[in-house]
Order: sequence, then structure tokens, then C-alpha cells
Amino acid sequence: MDRDRYDRGWEKLKAIHGEEGERFVENVKSVAPDLARFIVEFGFGDVYSRPGLDIKTREIVTVAALTALGNAQPQLKVHIQAALNVGCSHEEMVEVMTQLAVYAGFPAALNGIGLVKEVFEDVDKKRT
Amino acid sequence: MDRDRYDRGWEKLKAIHGEEGERFVENVKSVAPDLARFIVEFGFGDVYSRPGLDIKTREIVTVAALTALGNAQPQLKVHIQAALNVGCSHEEMVEVMTQLAVYAGFPAALNGIGLVKEVFEDVDKKRT
Amino acid sequence: MDRDRYDRGWEKLKAIHGEEGERFVENVKSVAPDLARFIVEFGFGDVYSRPGLDIKTREIVTVAALTALGNAQPQLKVHIQAALNVGCSHEEMVEVMTQLAVYAGFPAALNGIGLVKEVFEDVDKKRT
Amino acid sequence: MDRDRYDRGWEKLKAIHGEEGERFVENVKSVAPDLARFIVEFGFGDVYSRPGLDIKTREIVTVAALTALGNAQPQLKVHIQAALNVGCSHEEMVEVMTQLAVYAGFPAALNGIGLVKEVFEDVDKKRT
Amino acid sequence: MDRDRYDRGWEKLKAIHGEEGERFVENVKSVAPDLARFIVEFGFGDVYSRPGLDIKTREIVTVAALTALGNAQPQLKVHIQAALNVGCSHEEMVEVMTQLAVYAGFPAALNGIGLVKEVFEDVDKKRT
Amino acid sequence: MDRDRYDRGWEKLKAIHGEEGERFVENVKSVAPDLARFIVEFGFGDVYSRPGLDIKTREIVTVAALTALGNAQPQLKVHIQAALNVGCSHEEMVEVMTQLAVYAGFPAALNGIGLVKEVFEDVDKKRT
Repeated sequence: MDRDRYDRGWEKLKAIHGEEGERFVENVKSVAPDLARFIVEFGFGDVYSRPGLDIKTREIVTVAALTALGNAQPQLKVHIQAALNVGCSHEEMVEVMTQLAVYAGFPAALNGIGLVKEVFEDVDKKRT
Repeated sequence: MDRDRYDRGWEKLKAIHGEEGERFVENVKSVAPDLARFIVEFGFGDVYSRPGLDIKTREIVTVAALTALGNAQPQLKVHIQAALNVGCSHEEMVEVMTQLAVYAGFPAALNGIGLVKEVFEDVDKKRT
Repeated sequence: MDRDRYDRGWEKLKAIHGEEGERFVENVKSVAPDLARFIVEFGFGDVYSRPGLDIKTREIVTVAALTALGNAQPQLKVHIQAALNVGCSHEEMVEVMTQLAVYAGFPAALNGIGLVKEVFEDVDKKRT
Repeated sequence: MDRDRYDRGWEKLKAIHGEEGERFVENVKSVAPDLARFIVEFGFGDVYSRPGLDIKTREIVTVAALTALGNAQPQLKVHIQAALNVGCSHEEMVEVMTQLAVYAGFPAALNGIGLVKEVFEDVDKKRT
Repeated sequence: MDRDRYDRGWEKLKAIHGEEGERFVENVKSVAPDLARFIVEFGFGDVYSRPGLDIKTREIVTVAALTALGNAQPQLKVHIQAALNVGCSHEEMVEVMTQLAVYAGFPAALNGIGLVKEVFEDVDKKRT
Repeated sequence: MDRDRYDRGWEKLKAIHGEEGERFVENVKSVAPDLARFIVEFGFGDVYSRPGLDIKTREIVTVAALTALGNAQPQLKVHIQAALNVGCSHEEMVEVMTQLAVYAGFPAALNGIGLVKEVFEDVDKKRT
């Protein structure tokens, strides 16, 4: 195990995804401990920690890719939440989906908007 | 035909894609004139002209979506070029692809990098 | 806003999707009002209103595309229902799915058949 | 080998795809003889020979699915040609692509239109 | 109907998928009897019964393809169970998903791991 | 840089892909040096070097995934060659494609077979 990459990744993961991210990795660890480790070391320690793109833009890249692919709705919801966590506005998430209607079709965009709506409602619930 | 939307879209298209974009639309027009018109009116007049996301971020969204989908390589190359046209740096394009390795897999990212390389080489050729 | 395109689109949407379609657009409007407007103006006012393909064939095109993509099950169900609304028979929907087994694989076709079954059962329930 | 299904499939294949289809199957046969046989027996003998959808609609289903998937351009071109062979008009092919812009995004539709254009030009060349 | 292919297919289906597979085919039969027959005759009678790849490797091929496509989660779960039925170990299923993180991206792999976990838990429940 | 993981990955890469693999990584390095490093460290040093699946099965997993996705034909060809390098037979590659016709549709399988044919012909050429 690669302590530096892991620790750097774990800090990054917590900064982006909060406690929900920690729980998710623990959950993966129970079945596939090395895959869980690779998420932290490679995904967050190597890639998300890179300079060259600010963290807000990185989340927009991820949200755009997952919406276009359309086959990973749970992860897409988590990354819409993460985008808000790192400073994206509600309006920006709506704009990303609107633009994707042109490139990935309306159904992909509308499924994305449905998740944006769920995330907004979760945020509202937590506030009250 | 909707003059305002068309004109606004055409200006936007030229600003983003330059002469190559104009030629592309003319080419589509020869087979599918209304589809060509919808690209200009809807894609560029309605969507790309919206506030809420700056044009650089819009191109990053498009590049991320097309790289993840992986089924529209000619359009992806055009949008990598467009991203550079509107102010993205070479480094940012490389970062987008690097991040997509995590979310869409290395083959999608590597095909994207291949196109980034082609665009960089085209730019270098034009310079000399 | 473009009154003519919107009104033409809204009539088309109601003719194809009925009250469920209206509710869906209202729902999108609450998060992304312009995306909701684009569905009506562009999707239904511009595209679905075109001559050149009868409405039954248009729904078959949509059902085939969504089944092949396999990443928009809610929309696929809505369009199987819409296909029946505009005159497709139960048998035709089954045939579309059977043919797609050859081109998109059995899993995509079987997920499509599962939705066809749900739509048939909904129709039967409403009858009684 | 199942003589009836094979013969029925082979006749169907010739009726839809002509000599190009025969050559394609011969080509597959040289590497994967049973896969070539399954195309004829299952694809054409079992599925394309079914009643319940006329052959024109079957080709439209296939063209829509392949355009949406976007990962089988050679087959898509062959099926656009086949659609014309069995009675689809040029206009109908353009309409299918226009409609798919809404459901699968503009890049998929535009790649489809590019192939429609190639097929039209091939037809024109053969005429002269 | 082709008695030999059907019977061979039915035996194969039962050997791989057990009673759950039988129920699934019965369920499809109620809406699309010929599609159900094609699954048995073509999918299991023609393809799964072939020599050239042992049954364990065949299930690994199917699990890899469905995980990569990511649009057929119910079938993927059924095939992870089937892989265990025909002799794959828990560890092998985890390894397949880990490897797919490289080629199809982490979200596809993680959705696969989620289903592997569900299947493991189902197995544990049945034991107790 | 992580010397151990890189060296282990580089040896693995050479064992699987030979000189062509080395050239490919050098090529990526010229545009995206860190992405090239991640391929070696993560793809080959972390994942391909794991126990739990023999190398032959790993290549079959990759070939199945890339054929199903259908959007990375250059990589698919490289991995069909790699599968032969590590001990898969011609017949096994044909069987993988035949089975994928059921799960990913005939077009994906036939594009795969086309690449299998190209690889076989390259092998034959080198022999003479």
C-alpha cells in the first residue's frame, strides 16, 4: 500500500464527497478491498489532486461524462451533490444538463435534471 | 424560419468554430437543410448563447460528453479545436482526458488524447 | 419565447403523450424552465410536427433508439405508451423489440419487453 | 444445419441487401463460419422473415438503433442502403436522422446524415 | 419450432440459470412468445452449447460485456449468479470488476461490484 | 513517481503487448506524460499484475468489454493481438465474438470479427 497517495486521496475524497463518500468507500471495501483502495489512491490521490483544472471544473467534467453515458445514475447523483459541495451553483448544474440535450439527447439530459432536482430537494430538507 | 435565433446562432457558431463550422453547416444543408437550420437555431442560437456557463466551460462540457460517449470522433476533434479557440489551454484539454480515464475508462481517454494530439499538430502546422 | 412554435409543440405533445406528458413538462419546468420550453418548442414544435414521417413511424423510431441506448428506461416506457396512443398495435411493439435483439443484443430487447409488459398491464388496469 | 431457416434467411438477405450482403456473409464465413450461419438463420431466417412489421418499418427500426448506438458505422451505411432498397425514400431517411437529434443528440444524428449523404452519392454514381 | 435446438437450449438454460432462468423465460413468453423461444433456441441451444470456450469463460465474457455496457443491470445480476453456479469463485467476480475499472471506468465497475455484493448476500441468506 | 509500480507495470506491458505496446506508451507520453504513466503504473502495475485471474482470462475480459462498448476499435485490435500473445487460440477469439452477438448484438460482434480477421492476417504476413 502506498501511504502518501492513499492519504492524499482520502483527504481529497472527504473534501469533495464528505461523509457519504467515506461510507461509500467503506462499503466497497467490504467486497472488493483493492478496488476501494484504487478509488482512493488512483482516482483521488493521483487524478483529482492534480493541478491544471480547478476542482469545480473537474466536477463539471465528471457530471457531463456520467450524464452522457447515462448508465451510472447513483454515481451521477453523488457527483451533482459533489459539484455543489465544491462551489458550483444550482444554475450551473441546470446549464450543464441543458447543453447536454444537444450532444447526448434530451432523455439523457432529462434524467440528469431529475437527479439535479433530487439533490436540490435533499439540500432543502437538510436546511429545515 | 426564425431570423433572430438563426442570426444569433450563426454568429455564435462562427465565433466558436470559425470557417470550418460554416463549411460543416453548408455540407449538412445540402442533404438535410432543416437539420442544418436546427443546429444553428437550437444548438447555437438557443443553447450556446445562454448565460449561466461561460463559453470555455461549455466547450469543456461538450468535450467531456463526446469523449465519454466515444461514438462521435469527428465532432470530438472539432470541439477540441473549438475549446482552444475559446481560450482553453493545451494543458486543460489533457487534464480533461486524464480525468475521464477514471470515469469512462482508459480507452475512451486515450482516443481523446489521440485527437488532442492531432489538433495540437494541426495548430503547429498552421503556425509554420 | 416563440409563441407559435410553443403552441404547436404543446398541442403535439398533448396529442402524443396526453396528460402524463403535460405533467412531465410541468415537473421539468420547476427546475429547468428553459429546458422544459426547448422540449416543447424544439422537440415537439419543430421536430415531431414535421411532415415526411407519419407519427406512428416517428414513435417507432424513438422506441427503437431508446431501447438500443438502454439508458433511459422511464422515457422508453412513456414512448411505448405513446406509440400505442398514436396507433401502434401491441404486436408491433413486440416485433420492434424482437428485431432489436439482433441489433442491440438480447438484454436491451428483454428490458424493452419488460416495459412493453408493464404498459400492457397499465392499459388493462385502466380498462377495468 | 437447419436447411429451411438457412434458405429462407438467404432469400431474405438477398432481397434486402443484394450482392453486397452476400459478399459480406462470405467474408464473415472465412473467419467465423458459424457466426455467418447464425446471421442468415437467426437474423434473416427467424427475425427479418416474421410478419407483424413490414420490411420498410423493420429497416427503419434498424437504422434508428444503429444511429443511436453510433458504434457500428459500416453496418449503419449498409442498412441505410437497404432501407432505400426496400422502399424508403431519401426524405424518410433524412427525417429519421432529424428525429434522432432529439433522442440521441446531434452528433449521432449528424454522423447518420453523413452516411445518408454517402449512400445518396453512391446511388447517383451508379445511375450515371 | 425446432425441437432439438429448443430442448438442448432448455437443458443448458436450466444448468446455468436454474429455476430462476425458467421463470424468466416463462415471464417473457407471456408477452413475446417467439422472443422467449429465440432466447432458448438461439441463445442457449445454438451459442451457449458450443464447444470452443468452457462455460465458466462464457459467463465471464457475458459478465464483462454487461458490466461495460452498464444498461442491463437485472441481466448482469442474473449472470453474476450464473457465473457462480458454473464454478466461478467470488474472487474471480471481484477481479473481473476490478479489471473493468481500467477499460470501462470506475462507475461501471462499481455498479458491477454492487451487484456482486447483492449476489453474495443472497447466497449467504439461502445458506442460513 | 512510483518506481516499483512503474517497473512492474512496464514488464507486464511488454509481456502482453510487446514492442507495439511500448511504442504506444511513448506516443501518449509525448502529449500526456502523466496519463502514459498512469497506464503503466495503474493499468499494468496495479491491475494486470494481480493474481486471482490468469492473464488469458484477463485479456478475454478486456476483449469482451471493448467489443461490447464498440467505441474503441484501435484498442480492441491491440487486445485481440495481446490475447493471442498470452495464449488464446484463434478459435477462442471467434467464440468470444460469437457469444457477444447474443449480448451486445450482431453489429458489435461483426465489427469484432472484422478485427479478429485483420489480426489473423497480420500474423500470417509476419510468418511469411
